[in-house]
Amino acid sequence: MELTHRQEQIIEIVKENGPITGENIADRLNLTRATLRPDLAILTMAGFLDARPRVGYFYTGKTGSEIISDQVKKLKVRDQHSVPVVVNDQVSVYDAITTMFLEDVGTLFVVNHQAHLVGVLSRKDLLRAAMGNQELSDVPVHIIMTRTPKIKICYKDDLLVDAATKLIENQIDALPVVVEREDGQEVVGRLTKTNVTKAFVDLVRDE
Amino acid sequence: MELTHRQEQIIEIVKENGPITGENIADRLNLTRATLRPDLAILTMAGFLDARPRVGYFYTGKTGSEIISDQVKKLKVRDQHSVPVVVNDQVSVYDAITTMFLEDVGTLFVVNHQAHLVGVLSRKDLLRAAMGNQELSDVPVHIIMTRTPKIKICYKDDLLVDAATKLIENQIDALPVVVEREDGQEVVGRLTKTNVTKAFVDLVRDE
Repeated sequence: MELTHRQEQIIEIVKENGPITGENIADRLNLTRATLRPDLAILTMAGFLDARPRVGYFYTGKTGSEIISDQVKKLKVRDQHSVPVVVNDQVSVYDAITTMFLEDVGTLFVVNHQAHLVGVLSRKDLLRAAMGNQELSDVPVHIIMTRTPKIKICYKDDLLVDAATKLIENQIDALPVVVEREDGQEVVGRLTKTNVTKAFVDLVRDE
Repeated sequence: MELTHRQEQIIEIVKENGPITGENIADRLNLTRATLRPDLAILTMAGFLDARPRVGYFYTGKTGSEIISDQVKKLKVRDQHSVPVVVNDQVSVYDAITTMFLEDVGTLFVVNHQAHLVGVLSRKDLLRAAMGNQELSDVPVHIIMTRTPKIKICYKDDLLVDAATKLIENQIDALPVVVEREDGQEVVGRLTKTNVTKAFVDLVRDE
């Protein structure tokens, strides 16, 4: 949304003098109230200004990009995540690598005998292990996994943008989506950079 | 941006009857032209309607999400990509894995003696090789890499959303950003799901 020169002038006036009446803004621009009405309506509609009866217009502090941001903030983890792929903490590194290829995922979640989250295995972890001198069928995954409490998690109701920020800040490819249980966390999903990339593409593809 | 009932009525009228004059829309709604002016201004401003002098209003076919989409389409690969990490096609798989860990990237690009792109190595390719029975220092990367013309590439001037779509559709983590040279392609960047995830986060963080 591109603003006209006059609309930008109006925003400046309201920023400095708000709350201010429409009459008053018109005076400052040497225009009639009627001439200004469409501009005020547009700016209010688009969220730049807000109006209160008998008080006047005031600046909401919202910019064009904030209006996009409001849309992006409607996206939740629950709308985007994938099915999790889990392995038991007693399986071998060899079996974990096989599972990773079979399921074609970049991250595996590791659970204990109660099916609660205890670790995460990335392709990088498995590649590092594969480069070692150990026999991969003899090493259980709990030896090489990243373990709780170092694991970053997310919930279905989290904002997608918050989960995406965690991925970036922690330099990881995936977050387990968990549900809190009495004595641990159950893994119910997998939120990856692929999910975020898809959501980004969908912002455009919806048209 | 939420439309009022009247604004939605106007869009419907223009959709069915456009091009149509403001007077004519007003008649159909039993309103005066003056009453309608702010709504028509808003709808034109926001991109739902377009107006041509002496012709009237017509429907652009744009929806609210298309207006977001217009913003997202301003993002180019050149604004988001990372530095590429390249290896020569004669280096060993062992050295490539070491480079991947040292540079902390998920994808390496392979170049020939002219520094032109000939292949791509993903963590998955290297993990698969590491699981094999070969001595990794004896195998050159050109044996295991994905090679041209099977490689997907992008250019600096491509839309970010088009590059993101390539990543999703081809189920890959990164695209080389290339410049066409007389006898090949020079690699000038690396466009990853991390770059797209960052761009997604920035849509909100700009506020």
